[in-house]
Amino acid sequence: MSELRWDPLKTSWAIITTERGRRPRDFFLERETVTMVACPFCYGREEKTTGEIFAIRPPGSLANTPGWKVRVIPNKYPALRIEGDLEKRGVGLYDVMNGIGAHEIVIETPDHERTLTDLSPAEIVDVFRAWRARLLDLRRDARFRYIFVFKNYGLEAGAGISHAHSQLIALPVTPPTAVSELNACRQHFLQKERCLICDLLQQECEDGRRIVRDAGDFVVYTPYAARFPFELRLLPRRHSHDFALLDDRELAALAETVKDTLLRLRTVLREPPYNFVLHSAPPMQLRLGKPGYWNSLPYDYHWHIELIPRLTKVAGFEWGTGFYMNPTAPEEAALFLREADLSEIS
Amino acid sequence: MSELRWDPLKTSWAIITTERGRRPRDFFLERETVTMVACPFCYGREEKTTGEIFAIRPPGSLANTPGWKVRVIPNKYPALRIEGDLEKRGVGLYDVMNGIGAHEIVIETPDHERTLTDLSPAEIVDVFRAWRARLLDLRRDARFRYIFVFKNYGLEAGAGISHAHSQLIALPVTPPTAVSELNACRQHFLQKERCLICDLLQQECEDGRRIVRDAGDFVVYTPYAARFPFELRLLPRRHSHDFALLDDRELAALAETVKDTLLRLRTVLREPPYNFVLHSAPPMQLRLGKPGYWNSLPYDYHWHIELIPRLTKVAGFEWGTGFYMNPTAPEEAALFLREADLSEIS
Repeated sequence: MSELRWDPLKTSWAIITTERGRRPRDFFLERETVTMVACPFCYGREEKTTGEIFAIRPPGSLANTPGWKVRVIPNKYPALRIEGDLEKRGVGLYDVMNGIGAHEIVIETPDHERTLTDLSPAEIVDVFRAWRARLLDLRRDARFRYIFVFKNYGLEAGAGISHAHSQLIALPVTPPTAVSELNACRQHFLQKERCLICDLLQQECEDGRRIVRDAGDFVVYTPYAARFPFELRLLPRRHSHDFALLDDRELAALAETVKDTLLRLRTVLREPPYNFVLHSAPPMQLRLGKPGYWNSLPYDYHWHIELIPRLTKVAGFEWGTGFYMNPTAPEEAALFLREADLSEIS
Repeated sequence: MSELRWDPLKTSWAIITTERGRRPRDFFLERETVTMVACPFCYGREEKTTGEIFAIRPPGSLANTPGWKVRVIPNKYPALRIEGDLEKRGVGLYDVMNGIGAHEIVIETPDHERTLTDLSPAEIVDVFRAWRARLLDLRRDARFRYIFVFKNYGLEAGAGISHAHSQLIALPVTPPTAVSELNACRQHFLQKERCLICDLLQQECEDGRRIVRDAGDFVVYTPYAARFPFELRLLPRRHSHDFALLDDRELAALAETVKDTLLRLRTVLREPPYNFVLHSAPPMQLRLGKPGYWNSLPYDYHWHIELIPRLTKVAGFEWGTGFYMNPTAPEEAALFLREADLSEIS
């Protein structure tokens, strides 16, 4: 019998359709690949990109020259532009605002052939340090309500360039998924004076069936109402609302966890395409001195990472209803990932 | 400059990214196809499917034998099952209910080679008559809060079987997209005593830039805050909350409009994969004698069809934010479709 399961963080239902349960081998698909003649993200082609905003490179080395380990550049075709004032107006029943924002690319390694999964934990820390630096810088701009870090890996997950990279987007409005999660956490806190995500994490750790990895400061589990096969949630055990406040020691522990998780996905699902999304509290200054919801600090939020392997197609049912049908029970997905033999590949 | 545009029906923002504006030829992709050895939906293979629930067939012809024009069968691998009582319970912080519902397949033609676009308007009317009959039957079941009709065309749009078919799903909860649209219409009606969708339609007709077809009883346009390139909204000019109350004359006019629209998509985008979603008011008996929101009849809703060509990949940005980035301005999409020369193909 299928089940409809409610996620109190996402405030939505997922349908777990065990009748046509799908196991890892059902997802071993031929992956599409992108071939590029001259990749602009490669080492030695620094002059082909827009000028770098941030880089991790040896002291004394010049911007936009080789030597870097991680490099942040503006997106050449930005969805949103940094210049100008935010203008909002009505158009009859509609509203419109100009596309003010920021859209940056984090090139995760100089080496075209290596993916995030291939990087060492120390190299992954450098990627996180670039995210942190850009988050802290962009949030000083009062026009931005939310800054959003994500990564598309593989063509099926939307990565048009195969060279390992992630993206930052600063938005002039708080996006609906963030509003919805922030509200769910706020309501829970107002009722119980506890963090919703801490409570969910405690319940998951006690239950254990959906835990993929519970080691050190971070926990990885498949959500009870997972919308997608092998969907994962990765989060700090200790309450923490803001990724950008992590210190280098915490980033190192997170890098170990991310590397381990990506290796498990590689082992079980053969290098699946995936989307990686950081959910962190919005910048604080927006809530100071403004009326309404945003007036208090979002300490009741708990940052986390969503990792969604792109194994199934989203179709008319999902678009039309906002419900998701997931053909792999999260308990089964967690079991496969938990028991993966990482010695085979590392 | 990109624009963020607000849709008062969807209550969400879309980012129209004209910087990397994409025109129809940018979407001419190699389409994946499904090859089937023995299609169970084909004429003469009626015994291969689960027993038919409804069919349009000559008087006197037997169920599950040839002779039919349109045929409705239960999905062999249903996401939801019709048997049993609805049981709801809590699991710690989560909620779960068993997968009660209905999941039916409408086989639109006996001919494996013909798509909905190829059918004559009279044949399309038969498909709509099947939808109407099943909607009217399923809504008598008080366990179902919402009945949902959709169609996936093409492998990229999620159609695992290429033989032309659509699907009905009856759900034990009202899905979030429906709740959101019903609420938006209700709020507008309470403030203005007018239908939101009638008001949007009037504004679109006066503006004209996003109109694809305005002929007879139905209008087709690209939404101002279109989330996807060439996204379309198709709706009755005269206020009407419930698709299932259409008479045969109205179904004939709708079939003409749908056929014309699909031909335009074929001409401009070369047979794109698409999702087709019917948005109609929920069954009425649910709102009788119950307290709260659902107590009054949803006459303030206005049924419509969403037609989404699947031309771009939804990636981390969309999953993470709930915002959509659309690289084709809806005004440009409407122009291409409006000026399509249908004589080339008909």
